[in-house]
Amino acid sequence: MTLTVFADRMSQPARAIIIFCKVNGIDFEEARIDIFKRQQLTPQFQEINPMKKVPAIVDGRFKLFESHSILIYLACAFPGIADHWYPGDLFLRAKIHSVLDWHHSNLRSGAAGYVLNSTLGTALGLPLNPEEAAKSEKLLSASLRKIESFWLKGRGRFLLGSTQPSIADLSLVCEIMQLELVDEKDRERILGPHKKVVKWVADTKNATSPHFDQVHSVLFKVKEKLQSQRAVGVTSQNVLPSKL
Amino acid sequence: MTLTVFADRMSQPARAIIIFCKVNGIDFEEARIDIFKRQQLTPQFQEINPMKKVPAIVDGRFKLFESHSILIYLACAFPGIADHWYPGDLFLRAKIHSVLDWHHSNLRSGAAGYVLNSTLGTALGLPLNPEEAAKSEKLLSASLRKIESFWLKGRGRFLLGSTQPSIADLSLVCEIMQLELVDEKDRERILGPHKKVVKWVADTKNATSPHFDQVHSVLFKVKEKLQSQRAVGVTSQNVLPSKL
Repeated sequence: MTLTVFADRMSQPARAIIIFCKVNGIDFEEARIDIFKRQQLTPQFQEINPMKKVPAIVDGRFKLFESHSILIYLACAFPGIADHWYPGDLFLRAKIHSVLDWHHSNLRSGAAGYVLNSTLGTALGLPLNPEEAAKSEKLLSASLRKIESFWLKGRGRFLLGSTQPSIADLSLVCEIMQLELVDEKDRERILGPHKKVVKWVADTKNATSPHFDQVHSVLFKVKEKLQSQRAVGVTSQNVLPSKL
Repeated sequence: MTLTVFADRMSQPARAIIIFCKVNGIDFEEARIDIFKRQQLTPQFQEINPMKKVPAIVDGRFKLFESHSILIYLACAFPGIADHWYPGDLFLRAKIHSVLDWHHSNLRSGAAGYVLNSTLGTALGLPLNPEEAAKSEKLLSASLRKIESFWLKGRGRFLLGSTQPSIADLSLVCEIMQLELVDEKDRERILGPHKKVVKWVADTKNATSPHFDQVHSVLFKVKEKLQSQRAVGVTSQNVLPSKL
């Protein structure tokens, strides 16, 4: 029985799952679903995930989609996963669920909306939308303030004051990493005021090294390409990973 | 140690939690946080939930917000809760997490956005927004199609083909109930094409009777008021539960 992870590393929740597997020594096959080629829309992939989104997994006869559900499943189904990733303690676990639920309509919605409408839309054949980007930035900044003032409270370096990362740290940090794609002055404007968030991103990266950077390498390549294009005043049309 | 549920029964996730407690014989106190009076914004309530939203719970020294996390916590923390609400089986549980995660950005976002922008906004001092209502209706209808064609597949009457309801049935059905507030022809246009959804709502209501209707009675009163107002061509300004 083999675990297959259907993913495009340009997808932030897909990266979280791949990093989780690598850090925890989970044996898996990665099946690339190129979202820029719209491979998630094929009838074959819809047999895996009828919602037409990556990531999804197949573990033997069992299919699952939604990244938080997948992270929880992996933490429970595979032996030897350290408890800090998804604690057995009722109260700690409830708090991790709470962060993950909050994430959906806050950080995730804000960051994904901002990056798509300010930067990445063109590469997906969509027009950029400054008005939607501004709305998303407002939600993104409010979410970062909440992470800074509430979720990162406490003595530890990670969410909920923990001394070691959980699946929630991995999910939220991978989301924030998407901001690498936007213009540097915009990223600085958005992330700059949140020193604890910036440190937590670095701590999560260090705690999952070297896998974190390796899995993000596609993102970093697209970032470089976008930077070169901005330097010569070209819009982001040919930055697809498949064209690099 | 007493469980306190901070809720406004006009909030669909708050209703889900109250119904869950009542159906399962969980002893609790209900602390009303009137969202139309913006009581969720008070410093006292922010001590309970810094995100300024209902529902939230305090169980002894433990505070928690986000309704799905609360439902999972209650199902695990209290003795004697039947397994079907939140199955111990790894695979079934993973599928329930998957439904709940999907819910956030699909049915919940679509239904809440539609009801707010088409009907309820005025009562909250916000202008109605037909353009946003149309966008939300599109997401809501797509979500209902997915429930009909995918989540309600299988032999059982409930989500994932189950023969008895889970916390996911309760959460999603309470969301759909919010549509009781909109104009009847709009509700019929939206729900009418989805016969399995309509039957599943009735089945969930029956499985949690009489608590389901009792907890929804505030919603039904606001519905009546709105219907009377529509009959005489008045907009929905004085339908607040506190004014009924």
